[in-house]
Amino acid sequence: MSFSNSSLKIALCQINPTLGDFNFNTTKIIEYIEMSRQNQADIIVFPELALTGYLPFDLIEYPSFRIQVERKILEIAAVVNQEYVILGAPAFFKDEDGSEKIFNCGVVLHNGKVVEYIKKALLPNYDVFHEKRYFTENDDPVPYLIGDLSIGLQVCEDMWDLPSSYDCKVTQVLDEKGANFFLNISASPFSMEKQEDRLGVIKKHVKKYGKPFIYLNVVGGQDEIVFDGRSIVVNAENDIIAEMKAFEEDFIVFKLADLYSSTVLREEKEITRYQMMIDAITLNFKDYIRKNNITNKIIIGLSGGIDSAVTAYLATLVVGKENVIGVALPSKFTASRSMTDLNQLVLNLGISLRNISIGGLYIELENLLEEHEFEKENLGIPEENVQPRLRGLILMYLANKLNGIVLSTGNKSEIAVGYSTLYGDTVGAKNLIGDIYKSELYKLVHYINRDREIIPDAIINREPTAELKPEQKDSDSLPDYTLLDDILTLFIDEQLSKHQILEKGFELKVVDKIISLVLKNEFKRAQMVQTVRLSEKSFGGGRMMPITHRFNP
Amino acid sequence: MSFSNSSLKIALCQINPTLGDFNFNTTKIIEYIEMSRQNQADIIVFPELALTGYLPFDLIEYPSFRIQVERKILEIAAVVNQEYVILGAPAFFKDEDGSEKIFNCGVVLHNGKVVEYIKKALLPNYDVFHEKRYFTENDDPVPYLIGDLSIGLQVCEDMWDLPSSYDCKVTQVLDEKGANFFLNISASPFSMEKQEDRLGVIKKHVKKYGKPFIYLNVVGGQDEIVFDGRSIVVNAENDIIAEMKAFEEDFIVFKLADLYSSTVLREEKEITRYQMMIDAITLNFKDYIRKNNITNKIIIGLSGGIDSAVTAYLATLVVGKENVIGVALPSKFTASRSMTDLNQLVLNLGISLRNISIGGLYIELENLLEEHEFEKENLGIPEENVQPRLRGLILMYLANKLNGIVLSTGNKSEIAVGYSTLYGDTVGAKNLIGDIYKSELYKLVHYINRDREIIPDAIINREPTAELKPEQKDSDSLPDYTLLDDILTLFIDEQLSKHQILEKGFELKVVDKIISLVLKNEFKRAQMVQTVRLSEKSFGGGRMMPITHRFNP
Repeated sequence: MSFSNSSLKIALCQINPTLGDFNFNTTKIIEYIEMSRQNQADIIVFPELALTGYLPFDLIEYPSFRIQVERKILEIAAVVNQEYVILGAPAFFKDEDGSEKIFNCGVVLHNGKVVEYIKKALLPNYDVFHEKRYFTENDDPVPYLIGDLSIGLQVCEDMWDLPSSYDCKVTQVLDEKGANFFLNISASPFSMEKQEDRLGVIKKHVKKYGKPFIYLNVVGGQDEIVFDGRSIVVNAENDIIAEMKAFEEDFIVFKLADLYSSTVLREEKEITRYQMMIDAITLNFKDYIRKNNITNKIIIGLSGGIDSAVTAYLATLVVGKENVIGVALPSKFTASRSMTDLNQLVLNLGISLRNISIGGLYIELENLLEEHEFEKENLGIPEENVQPRLRGLILMYLANKLNGIVLSTGNKSEIAVGYSTLYGDTVGAKNLIGDIYKSELYKLVHYINRDREIIPDAIINREPTAELKPEQKDSDSLPDYTLLDDILTLFIDEQLSKHQILEKGFELKVVDKIISLVLKNEFKRAQMVQTVRLSEKSFGGGRMMPITHRFNP
Repeated sequence: MSFSNSSLKIALCQINPTLGDFNFNTTKIIEYIEMSRQNQADIIVFPELALTGYLPFDLIEYPSFRIQVERKILEIAAVVNQEYVILGAPAFFKDEDGSEKIFNCGVVLHNGKVVEYIKKALLPNYDVFHEKRYFTENDDPVPYLIGDLSIGLQVCEDMWDLPSSYDCKVTQVLDEKGANFFLNISASPFSMEKQEDRLGVIKKHVKKYGKPFIYLNVVGGQDEIVFDGRSIVVNAENDIIAEMKAFEEDFIVFKLADLYSSTVLREEKEITRYQMMIDAITLNFKDYIRKNNITNKIIIGLSGGIDSAVTAYLATLVVGKENVIGVALPSKFTASRSMTDLNQLVLNLGISLRNISIGGLYIELENLLEEHEFEKENLGIPEENVQPRLRGLILMYLANKLNGIVLSTGNKSEIAVGYSTLYGDTVGAKNLIGDIYKSELYKLVHYINRDREIIPDAIINREPTAELKPEQKDSDSLPDYTLLDDILTLFIDEQLSKHQILEKGFELKVVDKIISLVLKNEFKRAQMVQTVRLSEKSFGGGRMMPITHRFNP
């Protein structure tokens, strides 16, 4: 095989593996190899950890995990002929002293055998990344040679080797060692601005080294994470010549020569911000249901507010309106307009509604607890909390009974300040909007309603209320959502300290209150359900906070 | 200062800092410095991260954290005269390119100034450890010199440098570079066998290098972790010459010359296994309450079973019997003997009892849900689950109302196989026995009752039951606890794969069932409350598992 052979063809397989489903993933990989072969591909590329799914976490520590990996690599290698397959997979090596080291690799298969392990050099270990827990770094990255063709093969983080982040400049090293082009296999989590960041880095490399860059990302939902695909090929002129689909599997074959031509092979239409948000959430939730092999009967408590309305809409996109069951759970504090509004919502969405008043139960509870200081007249937090908890109980009952799952409906602002009742409105198997601040949610609704009214205007225009006591409004206990969200973004997403937030001109009293609410609600978040990560700092695995501490940042 | 000056004195300060409480910790450190000075100490040593507490997690990423650390180090340095203070603290260094690196250090203070940063070489990043997320490794450990005295100063993991774990053999390097003795400052989490492991490693080093070893550990509870103190001094002859207290602050001063003598300076009496378990749990819980500055009113749902009984007993040890409120929540499925037994328990413990029957509420719920397929006659999981959820709701109400917290009472066996109702018996701020398997719990009870019957025999001898339907017994749906716990220990604690467990002679059907239960209940554990880590693999932060996956280990 010769670099001068410009008719040499490369296939990129943007697949959606299921974590730990070795049979499913192997079958898929072999299908893509065969499809690539039908397209006369010489080099067939799969994303990072395509064989196992990303990230196996502690599953990788079980001996049978290694056994499965090694067995399946051989099984795949067996179907590989004279083409070269580059497959993302872990590789297990024993030291002389018997200790095992695991590398995150591009495994090269050729003529029925493993011919090389290209090891990841830079291991991300921040936010949702925990690779140093499992993998060993490779401190000597080298290009992979096929005849006189030198491929600057690198794994995901290896391309994020900019000044100040890592000592080993992988792309530069590969360039110096004679790579003809760069090929990055990734499992790169989606966030709203991520594709822009990726393109920025890739274009910087191409500009600096004057060599083409092929970027292949995985696609699919995995717990709180969305892998968005959107693989790209940038030619030596630093133009994008191929884009792959966002949020779905995709496949492309092109000639090596195309990397040095200006012909655009494939263009994807641009996705607007809020469509992207919707696509990310729906892919994540669809895969959550499919990969866990659970029911698609979705139970959502509808309050007449915007959070549950948007959640119900998003659910219909994934499971269809016939599988979404709205549940109204009115109490004596529920305004009649709430019922009117949610009836309109149900009509607009075409979902079914169950109406279960918690009034009788609440009275029974009042009577039962009266001897235990229940205050019928003076409603405090304890009396407020029993209402969402009764609702949570009924929602979980319906889920159990109808073989469905409950969706929790808290938004990022609420979750941040703990404006929710644990075991009440927080119950559920999944939360779809937990990484969207309330003020952003209004913009999302505006987008959802772009062609026709789906979320009723009455819901949008109503002042937010938990309806746990008479005349209650969120603004009784929280600052205005725009102000709240501005400060939360600085404190949570940008990790600014209080003094830095104050420097931006916010009022001390408000900032103090918000930071204190965030800090003291860590215990609630520790028991909350997984959401869908849309930002660079969502609540969940990427934000590791102690519960017990006395630091005020 | 000269090594030949054998009258030189070393003070070890085994303190209990509060995470992120810079004022509290600084005051404490200065007090211990003054106490050491009154004892004519020349070298005053504090444990790993004594200034901040272990581990700050993402709090360390806030700029104000660095500011506080640097401010407080200067404040402490200001009180230091001609003595040398070795203080565990993070140190922040800027690279030429402006990027920040954080090292986990022994900071040496002398004559009002910072004179050296001894950087940790080996960063643990497994189980509950996440140091590579925050810290940079030091690949060139060197002893710290005071005149001709060469101190082999190392931080925690640096001593666990045995074959097969790390490339850098820190102790050996320090020996080769002329250390006169080793001084390890640690924040080492307790587990039942940990002290034995530590002694094993220390004695191996002393035997190999023929030099004394001083091991100083921190003490205190931090979220799920217990730091047990138990610092030790081993002389050049490889004998323990000083032991410090377990589970409390302690202080010792000794002469450098003592390291080369066989005089035993201090002995601690041995703690039995179950006393150690109790001490670890009570320290953790005491610090949870104190450091979070929360109430000491404890609410516990009492079922008449062993789990809630032991939890109530442990709570009395921490907050006193006058602050523990037992709550009986009988339903129509509650046997009369349950009430008799728990009344006896309450009497034995001297705690108060509230009796709140959920019968009426349950009937109200039956009636309400009848139109939604509630089956009064045929009790399935949905109908069973509403009972613990009603109980959870009432317990949380009482906690809110009485300004208390609920203790969750699941044991490790139950948590492992998901034999619990989410938002029901799992509610609470803390679980004290979640790292104790059921069969071990019986042994603990035997110890608790060693002098007199505290947990009534009737509770101990009763067959475990959830009492959610007539005649229900745990053994209807679970294997015998001894068998269950044996298999769980192999699968969870030892991380053996199924084929390895089968090789030990267990029945395929049983093993399959148990593994499948563990796997499919990851989603429950993800929403469960923190427990107290007693083993090397407890559920919680040290066991990172995906929810979505299809791997069967």
